[in-house]
Parts: sequence; structure tokens; C-alpha cells
Amino acid sequence: MRRIIWFLFVGLSSSLSAFSQSGEWLFIDTSFGAATYARIELKFNGEEITGKFGALDVVGTMRGGRVELETRRVDGTVVTKRSGTVSGAEMKGEGTRDTLPLTWTARRIIDKPAVPRTHRFEPKEFQRYFSSTIPPVLTIFPSDSVESWSVDAGGTDAKGVRRSAGGNPLTGPFYVEGAVPGDTLAVRFTRIRLNRNTAFSGSRVTASALNSGYFAQQQNVQGFNSDWTLDVPAGVARLTKPTDKLKNYEVPLRPMLGCVGVAPQQELSLLAGYLGNFGGNMDFNQLVEGATVYLPVFQPGALLFVGDGHAAQGDGELTGNALETSMDWTFTVDVIRGLNIPNPRLENADYWMASGIANSLPEAVQAATTNLSRFLEEQYKLNANEIGIVLGTAIRYNIGELVDPLVHVVASIEKRSLSRIGK
Amino acid sequence: MRRIIWFLFVGLSSSLSAFSQSGEWLFIDTSFGAATYARIELKFNGEEITGKFGALDVVGTMRGGRVELETRRVDGTVVTKRSGTVSGAEMKGEGTRDTLPLTWTARRIIDKPAVPRTHRFEPKEFQRYFSSTIPPVLTIFPSDSVESWSVDAGGTDAKGVRRSAGGNPLTGPFYVEGAVPGDTLAVRFTRIRLNRNTAFSGSRVTASALNSGYFAQQQNVQGFNSDWTLDVPAGVARLTKPTDKLKNYEVPLRPMLGCVGVAPQQELSLLAGYLGNFGGNMDFNQLVEGATVYLPVFQPGALLFVGDGHAAQGDGELTGNALETSMDWTFTVDVIRGLNIPNPRLENADYWMASGIANSLPEAVQAATTNLSRFLEEQYKLNANEIGIVLGTAIRYNIGELVDPLVHVVASIEKRSLSRIGK
Amino acid sequence: MRRIIWFLFVGLSSSLSAFSQSGEWLFIDTSFGAATYARIELKFNGEEITGKFGALDVVGTMRGGRVELETRRVDGTVVTKRSGTVSGAEMKGEGTRDTLPLTWTARRIIDKPAVPRTHRFEPKEFQRYFSSTIPPVLTIFPSDSVESWSVDAGGTDAKGVRRSAGGNPLTGPFYVEGAVPGDTLAVRFTRIRLNRNTAFSGSRVTASALNSGYFAQQQNVQGFNSDWTLDVPAGVARLTKPTDKLKNYEVPLRPMLGCVGVAPQQELSLLAGYLGNFGGNMDFNQLVEGATVYLPVFQPGALLFVGDGHAAQGDGELTGNALETSMDWTFTVDVIRGLNIPNPRLENADYWMASGIANSLPEAVQAATTNLSRFLEEQYKLNANEIGIVLGTAIRYNIGELVDPLVHVVASIEKRSLSRIGK
Amino acid sequence: MRRIIWFLFVGLSSSLSAFSQSGEWLFIDTSFGAATYARIELKFNGEEITGKFGALDVVGTMRGGRVELETRRVDGTVVTKRSGTVSGAEMKGEGTRDTLPLTWTARRIIDKPAVPRTHRFEPKEFQRYFSSTIPPVLTIFPSDSVESWSVDAGGTDAKGVRRSAGGNPLTGPFYVEGAVPGDTLAVRFTRIRLNRNTAFSGSRVTASALNSGYFAQQQNVQGFNSDWTLDVPAGVARLTKPTDKLKNYEVPLRPMLGCVGVAPQQELSLLAGYLGNFGGNMDFNQLVEGATVYLPVFQPGALLFVGDGHAAQGDGELTGNALETSMDWTFTVDVIRGLNIPNPRLENADYWMASGIANSLPEAVQAATTNLSRFLEEQYKLNANEIGIVLGTAIRYNIGELVDPLVHVVASIEKRSLSRIGK
Repeated sequence: MRRIIWFLFVGLSSSLSAFSQSGEWLFIDTSFGAATYARIELKFNGEEITGKFGALDVVGTMRGGRVELETRRVDGTVVTKRSGTVSGAEMKGEGTRDTLPLTWTARRIIDKPAVPRTHRFEPKEFQRYFSSTIPPVLTIFPSDSVESWSVDAGGTDAKGVRRSAGGNPLTGPFYVEGAVPGDTLAVRFTRIRLNRNTAFSGSRVTASALNSGYFAQQQNVQGFNSDWTLDVPAGVARLTKPTDKLKNYEVPLRPMLGCVGVAPQQELSLLAGYLGNFGGNMDFNQLVEGATVYLPVFQPGALLFVGDGHAAQGDGELTGNALETSMDWTFTVDVIRGLNIPNPRLENADYWMASGIANSLPEAVQAATTNLSRFLEEQYKLNANEIGIVLGTAIRYNIGELVDPLVHVVASIEKRSLSRIGK
Repeated sequence: MRRIIWFLFVGLSSSLSAFSQSGEWLFIDTSFGAATYARIELKFNGEEITGKFGALDVVGTMRGGRVELETRRVDGTVVTKRSGTVSGAEMKGEGTRDTLPLTWTARRIIDKPAVPRTHRFEPKEFQRYFSSTIPPVLTIFPSDSVESWSVDAGGTDAKGVRRSAGGNPLTGPFYVEGAVPGDTLAVRFTRIRLNRNTAFSGSRVTASALNSGYFAQQQNVQGFNSDWTLDVPAGVARLTKPTDKLKNYEVPLRPMLGCVGVAPQQELSLLAGYLGNFGGNMDFNQLVEGATVYLPVFQPGALLFVGDGHAAQGDGELTGNALETSMDWTFTVDVIRGLNIPNPRLENADYWMASGIANSLPEAVQAATTNLSRFLEEQYKLNANEIGIVLGTAIRYNIGELVDPLVHVVASIEKRSLSRIGK
Repeated sequence: MRRIIWFLFVGLSSSLSAFSQSGEWLFIDTSFGAATYARIELKFNGEEITGKFGALDVVGTMRGGRVELETRRVDGTVVTKRSGTVSGAEMKGEGTRDTLPLTWTARRIIDKPAVPRTHRFEPKEFQRYFSSTIPPVLTIFPSDSVESWSVDAGGTDAKGVRRSAGGNPLTGPFYVEGAVPGDTLAVRFTRIRLNRNTAFSGSRVTASALNSGYFAQQQNVQGFNSDWTLDVPAGVARLTKPTDKLKNYEVPLRPMLGCVGVAPQQELSLLAGYLGNFGGNMDFNQLVEGATVYLPVFQPGALLFVGDGHAAQGDGELTGNALETSMDWTFTVDVIRGLNIPNPRLENADYWMASGIANSLPEAVQAATTNLSRFLEEQYKLNANEIGIVLGTAIRYNIGELVDPLVHVVASIEKRSLSRIGK
Repeated sequence: MRRIIWFLFVGLSSSLSAFSQSGEWLFIDTSFGAATYARIELKFNGEEITGKFGALDVVGTMRGGRVELETRRVDGTVVTKRSGTVSGAEMKGEGTRDTLPLTWTARRIIDKPAVPRTHRFEPKEFQRYFSSTIPPVLTIFPSDSVESWSVDAGGTDAKGVRRSAGGNPLTGPFYVEGAVPGDTLAVRFTRIRLNRNTAFSGSRVTASALNSGYFAQQQNVQGFNSDWTLDVPAGVARLTKPTDKLKNYEVPLRPMLGCVGVAPQQELSLLAGYLGNFGGNMDFNQLVEGATVYLPVFQPGALLFVGDGHAAQGDGELTGNALETSMDWTFTVDVIRGLNIPNPRLENADYWMASGIANSLPEAVQAATTNLSRFLEEQYKLNANEIGIVLGTAIRYNIGELVDPLVHVVASIEKRSLSRIGK
């Protein structure tokens, strides 16, 4: 494991001046270079330790700085055995899972403060990868908010200053204390606002959205200018140097974030233009102020990245670049423990939306429909035929984007339709 | 050519009691069993005939019941030569196109009446194919309206009487005098209304819209009932025998027509469940009262078929059957001469919509985007980059259906956006 | 039903001078315009009729030219009831299936002659559709052979004479007495030979097989000549007027048939360029002399069409036209009763090949793999994991064609691999 | 840039005891955290430095440990300006590209030894990512060979000892001195041999290769055993515990490598199960002893990884795992300077093969055909129509695999066909 396992140390010194060993611990087992994670509730009672990990019992002892721990099935058979040392809020040692050897570390998860905080975060550098190998810039707790901003897709900030190489440079990552793989992170954007009056876009429809014969006969206009002026008071964008045909053309401003994602599985480093079950460069034009994004957690702390503001975007992000601009935003996070979603979901006042992010349009439609079906199964306990009745009558599809490394399709259902289904 | 060429004779006896030979003629050339069509304006002046066919000149003579006709390029070279007999509103004979032999017939196209008529049509039998080999049930003129009805997808009428075998039985075809291949037929539905209080639907999401692993684990509920009661006063549909979870579930009624199509090219006979550039079983939930459907014409008279009413339908028609029911409807037709569209288009008060009907989702998206691009090129003379700007900011995609032999995707743009583009 | 139901009358007068009413009968039920077919073995014993239709019993009586027939389930419940008249080898009348009314006709299937015959057939006209609405040109029996020829894809014969409009004009259809829907037709090509020394091809790779960016930048060479000279003694084709680069370029001759198909379901008429589960324009370069093609039967008599000879073809038929030429061929037919295959199959000395003909490459691969899996299930009774072991180690895929209305992929397995599997 | 830039230091101390500053230098420019690379031939003549970088001229001076360098276009305009220090074989400093600031480092590329060497390499640890962030295990020169081995896909070696976590653990990476982005690495496998007599495989055909309806009805056999015994003398594999049906089933041994890849672009870390234009987990059953693999170079030194031996594999690797086993292998590398290929290529005695690695089958076929078209363009200077003639008659497609994150299709052409094309 090449990366620094920061999630063991983050914030501990300041926050744990007083703590109880009893409570939730984050365990990291490493076997042949691959890590697995668990959040385990432990109770320290004299020398005795007890706890629960899913259906497994945890039993152990702590004596003179040494700790012994086992997880056991209901029938008493042992799954993991760990021996090691304990020092305050930290433990580490060696052990076995079934017959395989492992090394392990653990630390006490810091309890969430009584009152949520709002963090004002000024980014200094920007990330060009979604990856668990990047140290977090800030540790926050469930219910906390972060108020910050992002550069545009090319790396330029609100004042027009170049701050990063291009490719959707990201603000973050933010470490959400207590989140572990198997949870879902909820990120509610209470504010997404423009912070400058310029944007840039592409001006050719991507080849993948046109018949190749038609694409081949299209003529590019040399020197065509696709810079935009954002008239925030009027609520519209206009081409800065329009052609005659487009001199009155206006686009309603609808600020959104193209990139909201957590660190993907294991030690993957994916470009900031990439997307997947971890979210990322989703480029979906409903990710506007007021929306909540739900993302599956793959790493301790989730590691949230945010960037790629668009002043407005049509379906599919057909020209590769929407109206790219820097953005101010504020979000509030929460962790839904034990909710395992196959792909991101979104929610706004009127709709529940389920993403399908996949290699191709047919697979993205399948993934989105499956994600929404699982939502109905999970939240309403509907059977296959009830799901058929509801989706057959009420599903709506949106095409998020067609131009990134994977395709993004969204299947939605109105909350009004859901309101008439028995729970 | 196996079919009866009814478009030569339809309505002639009654309508042509008095007519002038000068005017538009429908020509049908047949060469090695394949037919081609042309609408040619001819002027009879004594023995001399003159006319225009696109960029070609038509010159000829008529003497004692014999006719000789040539089409020539601007440089005087001859394209077709025809000799034959003429008798009132009809001509026929033999000839050549370049060096290939052909036989030909022609008849005077009947001039459109001064005042449009509304035809009340009572269907007696129903068609199970889109095909030019089916004789028309009624001849109408541009601007005429037809008021009629269709059975449901299974062949049952408003009174619950079985009238046809299943598979989307169709009302029609209607022959629109004057339409020829290369034109576009505009069909405006001024009325689409429910005529009974029952419908039926499927209750399982099609395998093609779900991950195969998820589909494989779904359990079908034996005996699940998916009959619907249509509460027209309340404007909603409810399951007739709902499960407990769905006992309050309601679907807003939004009557639409699944099938609107013309006869496809040549002598193809395609099942009424098929769709393509000729329209057909498009299953698009915006084809409601007030919408105008534009269809390319492949046969003289266009030969319009209508059927497959749905009381309501989600995107994609995921369960294979929407809320299938019989339907009353009225449409007005028009012919847009010389407008050649690659795939159907629709228009309502707020949107222009361009269909992409193709083998797969990626190809359907390409076809829809190309269709909308061509619309902007054709109606607004936009260049490739201007099209990029407009579609990149204003396109919306809908998935019509995913369950028929081809996939239907629709690319739309708001008329409000178009209103700010220079013509 | 618009078509003439020739399969009731074909060949009867000559062949049935002496016959027994006991034996196989072809039944055609028509209900609301849709036909269904059955081959039923009947035994006439005085006034009593008995028989079997699948798991159903047939019982009835014949008295004074009147016939009454019922099919019944094992539990005695009645499925169909028929009353009518009988006259020699024909019967007809009315009846019901469950509660639905039907009309029916039946005729005695002519018994296969003791000795197979070889028919020499000289085509006079050529078909441009695969369709059951085209009357057969010849009736043959299982084990019979037909020796005939086909024009090239453009309609030109061995002597260079234009005989038909283009679009893969077909020879046939041939009616195979006794074949009914649910059977499989086996067509073994014992001879596929060139009959002239010229061919033509395309010279541009289809857009659908190239990245659209690459396709858009390719420049077409005006006036490029893609006519071929077939040097049969040398076994190669050469460009007739090659460019300098290709002046020594040779293609090994490997004569094949692009089109082998039966009439598709119901009254569909599909262009001769179309393909599907009925075979058709399959354009697979292993359909050479010595191959046997297996096709599912959708119509009484199967109605076999043959055409579209290629002197040679690369995988995918990338230029739309292979080396198109007229062809001499001989085939022997057989009917495999009750074998229901989902898509065509082929066999040669070394391989079993299972076609997947579908809308897109992913679907065609799925269809081909499923077809080969079903073959292993059906012929070797393998379970899902045994199929996995065999296909995981021994499957080979070929891309038949990428340029026709549907895509054709073939999954193959060597007979050598199969020889080591227990039956 | 988080990674250690080892390619600056690798092997320098030992190999550069004596060297000339004149010669090839590797330059690394870093701007806003993103690196670009160049190999530049420099000539040191007193205080004067001159050189060439593509079409650009390099001019500069070296005085007292300080260096100034500019690259200029033919018209004299300056592209980059660099100032810094020089110390033996290393330089570094700051500068600008157009107006953007950059930092730079450079080192003298070590000249290739006169006589190629064969390195025997014993891997100690195994990589689970394709990434430039992993330090190389060995530096080699063009024409050198490496003799080594890899564990099986699960991490087990020739002696059955578990050596790594699973997921195709890789041997390497090997740094090839002198290779820079824009080159092609040629890796010729002179030896690929089994080193143990066991393998394991999957036993279910992947859902993506079957119709979902068929997949859903397949029943998995609990406890089915898919371990294999490799009988190297007999040249076949047999199931270790076969079912009755498969007790004589044999698979011819054909040892291949599933994973051969270089480090992908930038600082991406992709799982060892991933593939792309960098090669990787290509799972193509023609990558056997005797084959040469061509890979585009994205990083200085290319950074070659090798692993995932298969004793045999059907097309598509349908069960997800082929016959997975550890493997001994030897390769010889070469660098083709300035050859820029869009996707990997392979060569054996009879064929040239061009990979298409893409999101879906249609895109993979497009990429493969484009790759082979570019090969013909590049090596034979064929125009679009000549390419059409050659591919239309001689292309063959193989499906490499269908089960990994991207699809792999290969387009091939026989060398025999190529031998008759003018160069």
C-alpha cells in the first residue's frame, strides 16, 4: 500500500483531548497489500472488550497495553483473530482472517460534535484526480457544512487567475469522519452561485451524438468564438462575440456542478474528467442549488471532491464543454450508515433521480433503471410486478452526458407519484 | 409489382367530371419490377406539352390519343423518353430512362377542393401491417380532417367487442391526394380522447432496461393483475385489482397514440408493432392532443395509418404495454412539398421535437440529434458551430420507447429558444 | 389475409392421384385475419377419426362429406372444435379455439417419394422480398435437390444480361412439402460455383466500422474503379483497373452465397437486403460449398429463397458489397421436425456455427452465444456450468457482416471439441 | 505531482561513470502540476548548445554551471525559454512555454550498450495497478531481454505459494531507457511456458454474452468444480474433478499472457484488471509465444508490466477467468521512435493484428478497423479507397474479451495479403 493512511491520524490530536475508548473504532486490515475496512462498536469494561460487527460478535481483552480480539459467528466459529498493542485512541497488530495472515490498525472514530459547524474553506491547490491517495484538506463531521469555491474546468478562478492545469481541477478532498465503505454519503448543496461574468464552451456537437455521415459533411467555421458573457441580473448568458444569426440568442442561467465525487475503490487514481459509481464528472444539469447528491462510500472518510461549475448546460453536454465557469458553493454532508447504493442518486423538491453511469447508453439505461428499481425495493418494499407498474407509468429518463469517458443516464420519478405508494 | 396500383384510380370517377388536363400529374415508372414516382406540372397547349420536374424540362406532344414526352437537362441531354396513349385524365405507355427500358402510367392529380372537408370515418376492418400493398379506405385532400377511432392494441373496441387479431391493429390507410415521395406529411391531432373506462398494461420491466443480473434475480408474482380502471372525470387511472401497496396508486390520464405512420418504402409489409423513418409504432408519450406529427412520404398518397391508443405511458414504455385502450381521434393533414426529413418530427405549443428511430440507443441518439441539427440547418440556415452553440445549451432528450423492434429517442428544443435565432 | 394460400393446392392434382386419407394433414386456422398452422397425423377408420397433435388428442367423425373434429387435453377439456366438409384430400369449415371463432382449411400432406429427385430449375423472374406472400416457383420434398443459379446483387446474370432491379434479387421461393412452423429446414449446398469472370465491389469502408473522426478525415478518390476480374483457373480475383499500389493485389476466390433464407413470420415482406431469424441476407463468408444451413420454419413449406453470390468476402462485408457476381449452385433440403432453433445455424466438416442476427453487435454476440449454448443444451444435455466450461475454452466468434440492416455474428465450436463430450 | 520522478535517476550512478554531455536528453516540464516530456538531441560545443526537437530548433548556452535554452520555430519565434543549472548529466531550472510558467529538469539519456543483455529477474513483489506512480524494478535498454515469471491471476506462484492479493498481480514495471511519449514499445515474447500443472477457471458464461432471458433461466450448479490439471507432455488440460459429461473433455494447451501493458497517461492508477490504449489486461488468445506486442508509450521509460498467464482461453474469455496459472516468460524490447499508434498492435509469423479497446463492441470494432486502416496508411501509404479494397477482401475480426471493464476486438490481416501491396 503506497499511500499514506491519513485517515488514521486526521484531526486526532486536537479533537481527542478527552475521549472514552468505548465507542466506534475504524479498523483497517491489510493482507497481501490490499486493505479492508470496518467500523466496529467496542465496549471496554475493565480488561474485557465486547462488540458487534454486523452479525458477528467481537470479544477480546486488553491487558497492560496488549490487546487480543476475535470476531465470531453466531455458532462460535472464529472469523478474525487479532493481537497487538493499544495506546489511547489507537491500536495495531497482526492476525489472521480465516487462514490468511493480516496486519491491522485501528483508531477511535471521533464522536460527532453536538452542534454542526460551517467551515469556510479557501482552496490553495486543486486536484486533477479522484483518488484515495490524495490527503484530505479538511476533516468534517456529519451535519457539518462547507462553504468554498472551485476554479473552472480549465483551472481559472473567479478573478480570471490561472490556478491549475486544466481537466476539471477539483476542490477537496474533504474527509467525513465516521464514513466507511458500505455507507452512503449525502451531500446537500444549499448554494451554487456564479462568481464571475464569463464562461467558455465548445461549439461543435460531439461526433458520438451525430450520424457519422452527417458529422463528416459538417464544416467547421475557423475562428468561431464561443466565449460567453454571464448577465447575472438578467439571468441569461449571451455569446460575447456572436455571429449575426445568434446575436439575440440567450441561454437562461442555471448554475450547476459538473463534478461531485468521492474517492473510488482501492488506490485507483482516475482523472478528474472521469466518472463512475463514485460520482465524479457526472455533468448532469439537475445538480443545481437545492439538490442532494447521494454517493456510495468506498474509503474511510469518503473523501469528497467538488468542481467543474457550469453556468448552464443542455442535455448530454454535447459540445464537450458546457458554459464553463468558476463557482461558489456550500454543502452540508450526512452519512447514511449501511445504505449500499449501486450508483449515485439525486433528490430535489420534486423528484427522486437514480443515475446509471456505464460504458454505453444501453448499459447506462439499464444501470439507471436498476438503480431506481432498487430504490423502490429498498424504500417501499415493492415486488417485481409492483415495480413494473410504477416504472411503466411514471419513469422519466434524462441523458446527463454523452461526451465523457462513460455515459450518464438518469431515471427519475416524481415524489407526487411516490406519495401514493404504501410504505 | 404484385400490388394493385390503386393510387392511379382512387376517386377519379366522381371527382373528375370536369377537369383540365393542364395541371399536376402523378407519374409512375416501372423498370424491372421496381417503381419510381414523380409529380410533374404539365401544360397542354394545343398539341404541345411543356412542364418542369425539378431542374428538368419536360417537353412533348399530344396527337390523336398518342403522347410523346421527354425530360431534359438544362444542357438539352435527354433523361427519360416516354411514348404512349392518353385518355382524359390518364396516360400510359413505354419508354427509357437513360438506356434502361421502363413502362409508365400517369394520372391527373385531383385539385384540392376550395373548402376543406371533415370526413367521419367508421372503420370496419383493421390492418396489422404498415404497407403500400393495402388499399386505402378513404381518399382525402390536404387541409381535410378525419374523425375516427381505433381499437386497442389487442383488437378490442370502445364497447369491449373484439374486432381484430392483436398486435396494434390500425385504422386506415388514408390516401392523401397529391402527396408523393420526397414530400412531408403533417398530421395535426386536434382531438385524442378516451372512449371507454378500461385499459390493460404489462407489469414487468423489460429485460433490456435492467442489468441482466438484477433481472435474473427478480421474482415474477403469479397472477398479478394489471388491468386498469380509467376515471375520466377525475383524470386518473387506477389498478382495477391493486395490491395493498398500490391501492392508492394513481396515474394521471394523458391519452396518446402509439401508432401513427405512413406506408414504408417500396412494397415492404411491416408488422403494426414496427417503427422506422415512416413513423409507425413510435410509442412516444408526447403524441397527445394538440401535437402535429411530420412524416416523410414514401408512396403516392402517403397512406396514413393510426392506432394503438394509450391512456398514459411512462418514458420507454418499459412494460411493453402502456395503458392500452381504444381511442377517438380527429386529425387534419397537410402536405409540405419537397421537404425531405430523415425521420419523423413532432411539434406542440412549446417544443419542436425530432425523432431518432434506430437499431440501438446510441444510433437513435445520433439519428435524433442529426434530425434536430438538420432542422436548424434547414429552417434557420445555421452553420455547424451555430448548431453546436444552440444544441449544446438547449437540447433536451426523451426516450420514447425501448421495447419495440427499434429504439425511439427524441431530441427537442423549446420554441422560446428558437425565437431568439435569426432566420 | 391478403395472400393466396398456395400451400393448400401446390402440386396436389398431379401427385395425389392415389392417396390414403390417413396420414399427415396440414391445418390452417384463421381467426380475426391471423393464421396459425399445424401438422396433424390423422387416422381414418370408418366414420371415426383419431390423431395426435403434440400432447393433445384429436378425435372426430366423418359422415357423408361432413367432418367434426376436436382437440382435447389429457384431462378431456376441449381446446379446438371444428366442423366442416371433407372432399378427398381437402377439408374446410368453421370452429372455435377456446371461445374465439375461427375458420379452417386442411389438406393431406403429400408423402415423400421413395427416391429423392434432383430438380433442374431455370429462374425466369427474381424476387426482391423475403415474404410468404410470393407464390412458390417449385414444390420439392425432403431429400430432394435443386440445381439452379442466381443473378448478382444488381440483377445481372452469368452472361452479363440485366434480369432484375437490384437489391439482391432472389431465386425461389421453393416450397418444401411437409415443413411447418416449429420445424427446422436443413439446406446443404453441395455446389457453389462461379459462372462468369467478373465481379464488382465497394471501395470504402462503411462509416459504422470506423471511428467517426477518422471517417470524417478520409478523402474519397473520385473515379476509383472497383471492378474485379475473376481468374478461376488461378483461383484469385484481381482488380480490373488497379491503382499502382494494388496492381499485384490478389484475393483468393472463395465463392459463397450472401442470401439464403425462408419466408419470415406472418405476411411480412422484407427487402432482399434484410436478414433475421429466417436467415436472409446473412453475408457470412463461411456459407461456401459443403456448408449446411439450418433455418427455422415460419410458414408451411418453409419457402426457401437463394441469391447474392460473392466470389470472396472479408469479415464484416465492410465495403457494403463483397465481390458481387452471379452464381451456380445445388442444394439438398431436409426437414428436422419439431426442432425449434432461435436463429440460423451452419455446419461444415470441422465446425458447428450458431448465428446471432440482431440490432447491434452486443445483441448479436448475445444471440450467437445463446444459440450455441442452446445447441449444447439440446444436443448434449449440458447444464449451465458445463456449457460455461465448454464455451469458455472452445468458442470462436466471427463477425459475419456489419453493413446490413441487422448485424450478424457467428459463434462456433470445433467438432473435435464436441467429440469429447458425453451425449 | 505526487509521484517520485524516478526516471530522472534510474541507473544513472552506475552507468554514467563516463559520458558525453552531447547526445539525447530527457526533458520534463512541469506546469501547474502537469508534466510534459521531450527527448531532445543536444550538441555541446564550448559554451554553445544546439539541437533539434521535431521541427523546432534548440539554441542555448552553458556558462559556469548555468544553462539557458530556447526552442524556436522556423520563423524564429520562441516556444519555450528555460534557465537553470547544469551538473554533469543533469540540468534543472525554470522557464516559460508561451506565456505559461514552468519548472524543468533534464537528464542525459544513457546510450544503449553495444551488446544487448539478457536480464534474469526474480520478482519479489507484485503490482496491482498499471501506473506511472510505481517505481520500476529494473532498467533495461532497447534490444535487451528479460527472463522472468508471473503469479497467476489470484496471486499464487509456480509452487502454489500465495504471493499477492488477487486481481492479476503484475511483474514489473520495467523501465526502458530512452523511450518517451510518442514512441512505440515493441515487446517480442520469445518464450511463454507453463511452470506448474494446475489452473483454475470460471464455469458460467458472463451475463453480457447471453440474452438476458436465457441467462435468467439458467440454473447454477452448486459446488461445480472448475479446477484444471495441465498435462503438459500431452499438451492438453482436463478438468480435475469433471462431471460425467465432461470426463473426457480436453482443451489444447496454448499458453498466453492476459496482461501486457505500459503505464497509462499522467498519474492514472488503474487496476491490473483494466485495459486501454496502454494495453493491460487485454486477454487476447493470440498473445502466445512468438508474438510481438506493440504499445504506445505514455511515460518516460514506458514502464512495462506483465502478468495473468492463461494455459488456454476461448474467444471472449467468457467465464471471466480463462485457465489461470503462473507462467515463465522471456521478452525482448525495442523502441520505435516517433511511431504513434492509437491502440496496441500484435504481430506473429502470419498476421498483423490491430487492437480496438473501447467501451462497447461497436466502438471496439471501430477502433480496431481504424487502427488497421491507419497501419495500411502509415506503412503502405494507401488511400481511403485502396484501404477499402484491402480490408473489404482481407480483414478478419477476433473478439479478444467481453468480460473486462472495456471490450477488446482485434482486426487482422494476413501477411500474405500484405505481401502483394506496393510499398
